[in-house]
Amino acid sequence: MNRIFEQTKLAFDLPKDIIYLDGNSLGPMCHASRTRLMDEMDNQWSKKLIGGWNESGWYQLSQTVGDKIAALIGADKGSVSAVDSTSINLYKALHAALGLNSERRVILSDKSNFPTDLYVAQGIIKQLNQHADKPFILKIVEAKELISAIDKNVAVVMVTQVDYATGRLLPIADIIAKACLQGTKTIVDLCHSAGALEVNLTALGVDFAIGCGYKYFNGGPGAPAFIYVKPSLLDKIEPVLSGWMGHASPFDFDLQYRPADSINKMRVGTPSILGLASLDAALDVWQGVSLKQLRARSIELSELFIKEINQHTSELELASPVNAQMRGSQVSFCFEQGYALVQALIAQGVVGDFRMPNIVRFGITPLYIDEADILQAVQKIALVLEQRLWDQAQFKVRSAVT
Amino acid sequence: MNRIFEQTKLAFDLPKDIIYLDGNSLGPMCHASRTRLMDEMDNQWSKKLIGGWNESGWYQLSQTVGDKIAALIGADKGSVSAVDSTSINLYKALHAALGLNSERRVILSDKSNFPTDLYVAQGIIKQLNQHADKPFILKIVEAKELISAIDKNVAVVMVTQVDYATGRLLPIADIIAKACLQGTKTIVDLCHSAGALEVNLTALGVDFAIGCGYKYFNGGPGAPAFIYVKPSLLDKIEPVLSGWMGHASPFDFDLQYRPADSINKMRVGTPSILGLASLDAALDVWQGVSLKQLRARSIELSELFIKEINQHTSELELASPVNAQMRGSQVSFCFEQGYALVQALIAQGVVGDFRMPNIVRFGITPLYIDEADILQAVQKIALVLEQRLWDQAQFKVRSAVT
Repeated sequence: MNRIFEQTKLAFDLPKDIIYLDGNSLGPMCHASRTRLMDEMDNQWSKKLIGGWNESGWYQLSQTVGDKIAALIGADKGSVSAVDSTSINLYKALHAALGLNSERRVILSDKSNFPTDLYVAQGIIKQLNQHADKPFILKIVEAKELISAIDKNVAVVMVTQVDYATGRLLPIADIIAKACLQGTKTIVDLCHSAGALEVNLTALGVDFAIGCGYKYFNGGPGAPAFIYVKPSLLDKIEPVLSGWMGHASPFDFDLQYRPADSINKMRVGTPSILGLASLDAALDVWQGVSLKQLRARSIELSELFIKEINQHTSELELASPVNAQMRGSQVSFCFEQGYALVQALIAQGVVGDFRMPNIVRFGITPLYIDEADILQAVQKIALVLEQRLWDQAQFKVRSAVT
Repeated sequence: MNRIFEQTKLAFDLPKDIIYLDGNSLGPMCHASRTRLMDEMDNQWSKKLIGGWNESGWYQLSQTVGDKIAALIGADKGSVSAVDSTSINLYKALHAALGLNSERRVILSDKSNFPTDLYVAQGIIKQLNQHADKPFILKIVEAKELISAIDKNVAVVMVTQVDYATGRLLPIADIIAKACLQGTKTIVDLCHSAGALEVNLTALGVDFAIGCGYKYFNGGPGAPAFIYVKPSLLDKIEPVLSGWMGHASPFDFDLQYRPADSINKMRVGTPSILGLASLDAALDVWQGVSLKQLRARSIELSELFIKEINQHTSELELASPVNAQMRGSQVSFCFEQGYALVQALIAQGVVGDFRMPNIVRFGITPLYIDEADILQAVQKIALVLEQRLWDQAQFKVRSAVT
């Protein structure tokens, strides 16, 4: 198994002096992305100019990339479009889901959802309640109360499978089963799942899914996100963001919007070709990688990491579930001076990240992280703790992004 | 004056055997964009990884680029954000404008508006009318009836200054003056104006403007678009697309959305850094270029083009206004076999484009087009017409994008 990952590691352009345990925040660059972007500049955009839309595959690129992503999340070909940002794709999915359940008024989510998902829902609620006869409600419960909170009033339940802070997995199969029974539509945010876990959207029966191109898919900073629509729903939904790239025939320049009958209907304006090209190339690293193997490897490395941390220090308290089956592909710890610790670790070449209020987070990404990296990272973490190297860092001004 | 444009021409990587009269559709690549993208790959993303958000200026890039665009459209620093697509930015602007005029129900536009703008408005109308007590209406009139159609029922008038097909300019100063009198909010689509005309949003008193990064700004295929909000309105509007990048403090991970008090509130999800980087570099070509000079040069070249065409052929009928002051930076002709003509011209190295039903369109872009290009293009156009070279092209299958 590990021979596959020895190969995939070679696909990445990683600095020699850094152990990068933050691929769950921004994936590193594949050599193939660099080659591809060079080609887009030297042979496509600069040479073919406007002709690139036909000749360089730009026009279909959201779908080309979408199909590659579909294969990694257990979705049918033609059910995923790579376009816009995760937040905007969630907005599309929420409106579509509400439209399919137009008699109901409740959007259900949980406190551990990624905040932007809640923000997007808050925006929709505010907008709809300017005119709605019966007010829409965003109901936010504890994660463990999600299933019991799904009833016939709930139009849509939206959840993020992996808690961004602790890595805790939600029981999405059970959530979806209950939603199905109650006629509640489902939206699953796969930002920390896609490329990290075995996900089978078709088998789960999820209605909509969204996710990110720049974390485990390594598409580059601000890479296009993706949106999945269950194939049986595709012709039942009307895009709320109705732009020309989602039109059945954009270049007819009709005055009337008529949505495409494919997943292209989820496109809005002109998609970012440079972003898509980088992501497209980065997705090729997955050829020959099974997600089952990747997940097994992720657990193996995570277990090693936790075991070694426990052996070397007692200062870090595991914030992630102890049970590997309940954990995504990250390991988080509580540490009061978490921000300072992360800064001190970065100075030592171990890159993780900090999340409020006291979470120190390490992404375990088998495509380019191996046992040697884990062992070396733990040594450095132990050193920083033992020598209290974070002490000097704690008074530094916190920058906007950590 | 022309010495400036001799210099700017050198900034572009243009194929030697092509006369590119389609920069109004997709601008060509600046050498600086290539250099910048190489740097983003080799020195920022691959080396700094997640640290790039702070150290490489990514977090502020929407604003950095927005400020460069602001200087080219007569807008204050801090009033423009470069983010998302034009269609999505229009969606934000329309909702914001309707929110500012919540008693009114009419969105006014005209038949010559770019179709995606109408599609976006249609989507909003459909969405709002699911719940609205008093129905919202999209009123589409002839362009010449716009001013008289603005009354106290109109919440917002949205216009594209330059007709994408004919290049005809709308009298936006008059439109805005009337709107101002009637308390109607204004949205101007600058897709074919920004980088082509002298635009002074502050002097005009426009409420919102949107536009494109990939046409006259040469940001690359699918480059991020921009949105302008009149500074006095900024704290009065609530973003309908409320994502974490528009939050006052994204990395506090609050559960409650709280919009930024800057133009950043118009951001939603994570912006495309590769797209922004290319656009950022391409905008530097404008240093030392005055838009007054650019406009004068554009008119000079357009007049030459029309005069030469008239001298060489009688088969092309001018579709653009004869009066240069009424025309954007493009020249369009009617020709029944327009699609075939464009294909035949491309085969001869003259790139224009075709727009339904019979428009052949040539963009005049002084940054990299000069007299010699115009004269050579006209010779080739005359040759193709004289020898009916379009005749063989007319039966070719039309591809999706022309």
